[in-house]
Amino acid sequence: MIHVLDQRVLPGRERLLRLRTLDQVIQAIRTMAVRGAPLIGVCAGYGMVLAARRARTLGELVRSARRLRSARPTAVNLRWAVDRILRILTPVFDSLRPAERVRVTLQEARAIHREDEQLCERIAEHGARLVPRNAGILTICNTGALATGGIGTAFGVFVRARSKSPTIYALETRPRLQGARLTMYEIAKARLRGVLVCDGAAGALLRDGRIDLVLTGADCIAANGDTANKLGTYSLALLARAHKVPFYVAAPCTTFDPSAGTGRDIPIEERDPGEILRPLGLARRRIRTLNPAFDVTPARYINAFVTDRGILRPPYRQAIRRRMLLPQNP
Amino acid sequence: MIHVLDQRVLPGRERLLRLRTLDQVIQAIRTMAVRGAPLIGVCAGYGMVLAARRARTLGELVRSARRLRSARPTAVNLRWAVDRILRILTPVFDSLRPAERVRVTLQEARAIHREDEQLCERIAEHGARLVPRNAGILTICNTGALATGGIGTAFGVFVRARSKSPTIYALETRPRLQGARLTMYEIAKARLRGVLVCDGAAGALLRDGRIDLVLTGADCIAANGDTANKLGTYSLALLARAHKVPFYVAAPCTTFDPSAGTGRDIPIEERDPGEILRPLGLARRRIRTLNPAFDVTPARYINAFVTDRGILRPPYRQAIRRRMLLPQNP
Repeated sequence: MIHVLDQRVLPGRERLLRLRTLDQVIQAIRTMAVRGAPLIGVCAGYGMVLAARRARTLGELVRSARRLRSARPTAVNLRWAVDRILRILTPVFDSLRPAERVRVTLQEARAIHREDEQLCERIAEHGARLVPRNAGILTICNTGALATGGIGTAFGVFVRARSKSPTIYALETRPRLQGARLTMYEIAKARLRGVLVCDGAAGALLRDGRIDLVLTGADCIAANGDTANKLGTYSLALLARAHKVPFYVAAPCTTFDPSAGTGRDIPIEERDPGEILRPLGLARRRIRTLNPAFDVTPARYINAFVTDRGILRPPYRQAIRRRMLLPQNP
Repeated sequence: MIHVLDQRVLPGRERLLRLRTLDQVIQAIRTMAVRGAPLIGVCAGYGMVLAARRARTLGELVRSARRLRSARPTAVNLRWAVDRILRILTPVFDSLRPAERVRVTLQEARAIHREDEQLCERIAEHGARLVPRNAGILTICNTGALATGGIGTAFGVFVRARSKSPTIYALETRPRLQGARLTMYEIAKARLRGVLVCDGAAGALLRDGRIDLVLTGADCIAANGDTANKLGTYSLALLARAHKVPFYVAAPCTTFDPSAGTGRDIPIEERDPGEILRPLGLARRRIRTLNPAFDVTPARYINAFVTDRGILRPPYRQAIRRRMLLPQNP
């Protein structure tokens, strides 16, 4: 059984979900009860434990893995975690007794979880150096403990830079309002200084000179540095560039996807129009919408990546190949 | 008594408000039951009729006018309409009997209303020529009949260009959601093709090549062309420029403010944080927000103004002085 905090009802309620079956895990990821690319990866690891418990044959396990893998298309951490466990289990599946398969899978899922915690720590450490004293930092969506297995990606940087008294300007991030609901909740818990603004305020904030840097997370980073993240990130990157404010992306090595050559290879999830219409009380009206969950920011608008392996600067193709896609030196 | 549609409860309910006193008019404008720069001007004209009915002295009328004038600070049409009526009434106030003062004021208020209707028609006519066949048009906030005394400013252009089958992409326009609530409602009534998107989608839409032009309204245009409009308009203008998509502003001569030399002279209204927090169910949390209702788009990002007196192209200072600030030739 997996216990997860149901992020759909935060900050109003802190409700624990108990996920007993793979279908429940898939449902939790799909409905965004569990969200945030790194946390989806961690949760998928544990989901594979539930799958391993049920699978009588390797074929069954692979079919389960395929279903889990496609719960959401954009966050590469999901595919990465599922594949990592499959890679461990496939060669030994038939030689292990069922209980041993579960044990091996659980061990790997826990390793993914523990590692993500460490990746967050390293990202925070590297990123904090980029934050000037009393910085105004603009961010989008949620990148904290709710999105990862540790203190967060971009949010971990805010926490680690606390002694420099940053002010975090959080975009509310429609339609799911992860900024308003989750980031402001984590800001309060971490006793950081935070200001909530509507998504349309980004340009005015940058123009007012309140923002010293923009720092976001990522859902998938292609081999050339093109980055898929929450819808609105691309606008932010363009606006930051127009105001000569640095735009940084914080992400662990697990969010880099060597199989995507450029942003064009990253699948962008189109979600239910109800996500936009329901909170407005407009669900029953016949209103056409477009609701892509992510957009792609071309690498040329990203001033640096803040990763567990240090700060990456352009040209990204080389930097990513050398430092992110090869196994790390101990 | 003034009858106005309460725009706060649209599209769920079509509720008429009856405004019997100047205070009720001021309250309706402040709470945005009545909104949209031109409509605020029309409504203020009728508000002056209520003020004229009560005023025993010119001093009393001027004090009422001052209160009405400051109901909202940014939309210049409010100040313009109040001042226009004061200019008519001041020299004759003492020589007229009370009933005659009311008659004169009502006549002028009706003239403002009727003129706004005509200004909208002319804007629509000029603007429609800028719309290519099957255009994707991105807009923000609401600029239709709900915002004016006629068919609208930018929205009037959409209506007039209907035979060219445009698709209107409406930003939902947080926090008050005029795009989602009012523009989509008017799109349905006008049988136009509309698509609702979140504010963060602007960049991605422009990048996808769906948008052929961006067309917005305005709340105040300075003598150099700097334009205050709904928060998020500045971002839109920058994003349009980055994608080489023309960015147009549609507004009547009454929205040009000769007393503002540049955008820096336009007062920007900061509204209650509750506007952001209440719809999210976060009103009782101690969350710091910034909620400016408008931002200023520098003239250099505006490809043209669509006005009742034709299309204005840069350099704007001259074009505005010659064509917008002098009385129009008959």
